[in-house]
Amino acid sequence: MPPLPSEISSRVKRLAAKLREKGLCAALLRYRLHIFYFSGTFVDGHLLITAKEESYLLVYRTLERAKAEGQATEIISFRSLKKLPGFLRDLGLKRIGLEYDRLPVRQFLLYQKLLADFSLEDLSPLLWEIRAKKSPYEVDCLRRAAAMLAEALRRFLPRLRPGMTELEAAGLLEASLRRRGHPAHTRVYNWTQELAYGHLLFGASAAVPAYVTTGQGGQGVVGYPQGPGFCKLAPGEIIVIDYAGWYEGYMVDQTRLFSWGKLPKDLVEIYEKIYELMQSLEESLRPGVLAAELYEKALAEAQRLGMNKIFMAHGSEKVAFVGHGVGLEIDEWPPIAKGVAVPLGEGMIIALEPKCHLPHHGEIGLEDTFLITSEGSERLTLFPREIRLLGP
Amino acid sequence: MPPLPSEISSRVKRLAAKLREKGLCAALLRYRLHIFYFSGTFVDGHLLITAKEESYLLVYRTLERAKAEGQATEIISFRSLKKLPGFLRDLGLKRIGLEYDRLPVRQFLLYQKLLADFSLEDLSPLLWEIRAKKSPYEVDCLRRAAAMLAEALRRFLPRLRPGMTELEAAGLLEASLRRRGHPAHTRVYNWTQELAYGHLLFGASAAVPAYVTTGQGGQGVVGYPQGPGFCKLAPGEIIVIDYAGWYEGYMVDQTRLFSWGKLPKDLVEIYEKIYELMQSLEESLRPGVLAAELYEKALAEAQRLGMNKIFMAHGSEKVAFVGHGVGLEIDEWPPIAKGVAVPLGEGMIIALEPKCHLPHHGEIGLEDTFLITSEGSERLTLFPREIRLLGP
Repeated sequence: MPPLPSEISSRVKRLAAKLREKGLCAALLRYRLHIFYFSGTFVDGHLLITAKEESYLLVYRTLERAKAEGQATEIISFRSLKKLPGFLRDLGLKRIGLEYDRLPVRQFLLYQKLLADFSLEDLSPLLWEIRAKKSPYEVDCLRRAAAMLAEALRRFLPRLRPGMTELEAAGLLEASLRRRGHPAHTRVYNWTQELAYGHLLFGASAAVPAYVTTGQGGQGVVGYPQGPGFCKLAPGEIIVIDYAGWYEGYMVDQTRLFSWGKLPKDLVEIYEKIYELMQSLEESLRPGVLAAELYEKALAEAQRLGMNKIFMAHGSEKVAFVGHGVGLEIDEWPPIAKGVAVPLGEGMIIALEPKCHLPHHGEIGLEDTFLITSEGSERLTLFPREIRLLGP
Repeated sequence: MPPLPSEISSRVKRLAAKLREKGLCAALLRYRLHIFYFSGTFVDGHLLITAKEESYLLVYRTLERAKAEGQATEIISFRSLKKLPGFLRDLGLKRIGLEYDRLPVRQFLLYQKLLADFSLEDLSPLLWEIRAKKSPYEVDCLRRAAAMLAEALRRFLPRLRPGMTELEAAGLLEASLRRRGHPAHTRVYNWTQELAYGHLLFGASAAVPAYVTTGQGGQGVVGYPQGPGFCKLAPGEIIVIDYAGWYEGYMVDQTRLFSWGKLPKDLVEIYEKIYELMQSLEESLRPGVLAAELYEKALAEAQRLGMNKIFMAHGSEKVAFVGHGVGLEIDEWPPIAKGVAVPLGEGMIIALEPKCHLPHHGEIGLEDTFLITSEGSERLTLFPREIRLLGP
């Protein structure tokens, strides 16, 4: 079910309050995901939200669906950017916030020229903060995303067989996600990154480093060198499945381990330590704790458990994070990373992914998505955490 | 097989020549796809290419794979942006080109501050032009992408059944693409757009308009309102499959029509007209013809064939294009659209997609990807163009 009118109004009100705080007259949004967040519909166009809590959906395409699905004070066809200065002037707006983290420079230069009589400012951090705090409606979507992922996994697992390639297995899991409503597209915030559904990796390939800031890398294919590749499943290897569940725009992030037949004892021992480390991190999840504190705690625990050398490394290179916000994008605010002095707050959704990498064996890790509650946290990804042994 | 060293060198030389033409000292590339194009590897980092044909791969991550896969004069770990001005100064560089169409404003402001002593300019149009002309290696990849898509389709079609949802069918087709090396990710140039594999749509849903600039729209799902949704296949409906084939980074774009059982005669007649229109466009494909001329010709032909009202419309809204360049991204330069006074040239790859939309029946259209040759064009997407009737 799409967001209710009351959900959209409350988002517009929160943004308007932030605009007033900063002395801005309005937010001029161009990024489709922000337009969806604040109006309930995807359009190619602009969404103008004023400090007075009014919103104008200025539509290139499509007016038909914008009117059927969207919510705004006015929804109008608006095909010429040249009319924008007049439109803003008529509303008495002067200081306008833009999405500096999304707009490419060429688009920005166009606005600068067109809106030379206005004062333009960066809205990005303000939007990160608003989106980081999830409403009960959003938490409900996230719970459904977790249930959807669990069900898709359960239906897929009996079809996995030794000799299958990572790509073949990924295709089967993804078909299972797809029939449950997954759009085969993962929205990523960081413009230097890209990601398909997630990573399904066998054995050593999960320790192959890649260009992306993810728990694991993967060999991938030429032209897309991350994630599943042509490597084949052998019995006794670790199978890593780090995939996102989806429900109506919202994603949860989860990593689980599997194996066809028994795993070597030393790998199971590392898993037990990761499990202990995750529990210890989980106990620290509560309003007020800083993202950087969680990261430092993870490092300290890895040290205490004697696995600091293999902890959060991509091949031979360290990755300086242990988690991230998640929601409409897979990498929302805040990163749980070195130096991020951002306190967690009630309603935030945080994925934690402590992982170890062993060049010859791959990855031993866990990932869960948590809701920060008034007293601590609640785990949303309820698929059993044990290493599941597959096969006859 | 990844691009050979000679392929990479020739790309670097073409860029260096363009830089000299424009009086630029160097290109500082941050976009991962450009880094791959000019060095053969994906890294998170920068690739600096000078007018003197030297290239420096400055790597955040991962140095290991950059060294194993990449080609540059130097490949070095470079983790601090603060060192960038000194590095550029030591090389005697002054006028630097950046990717203004890719860089978000926040990143650009950082460069402006850091590189205040340098002169920064927009590289975008220069890069569109270089990438538009494909080498024999690239054409070979595109041929393989077309063969891969044809084979994936052939394996998928016998599994399609009435009662299946679009999402379920898409999952099966995509599993077939996936096992053949598709990364489940489609690179899109236009920052206001997003696209999963493509669109697989049944009957009327192909005429549902969407926010994206594609031939057809689709109902999609809440939070991703384009492409396949929960609509079920009924006998006698048009099935549209507009999907991209993939081979080692390169994509071809193709649309074909299918049906479970016989289609109404009037729909087949529209298909025959679209077929005729496509052949007429194909005859005009040659070096020197302007993108806008092709677009105008398509409109004139649609008028002549008495179908101008339903031609290239998304629901009730017109879309002002009839094709696009394609290669590493699904929407490369140039768009075959209104007012685009860009001449086609030998080695360009152009997808043409004349399509008609009928609110109660969906879409009747074709799409093929062509190589522009010295004398005309060659069709790369060789899957048979007839409407294939499925079923017993």
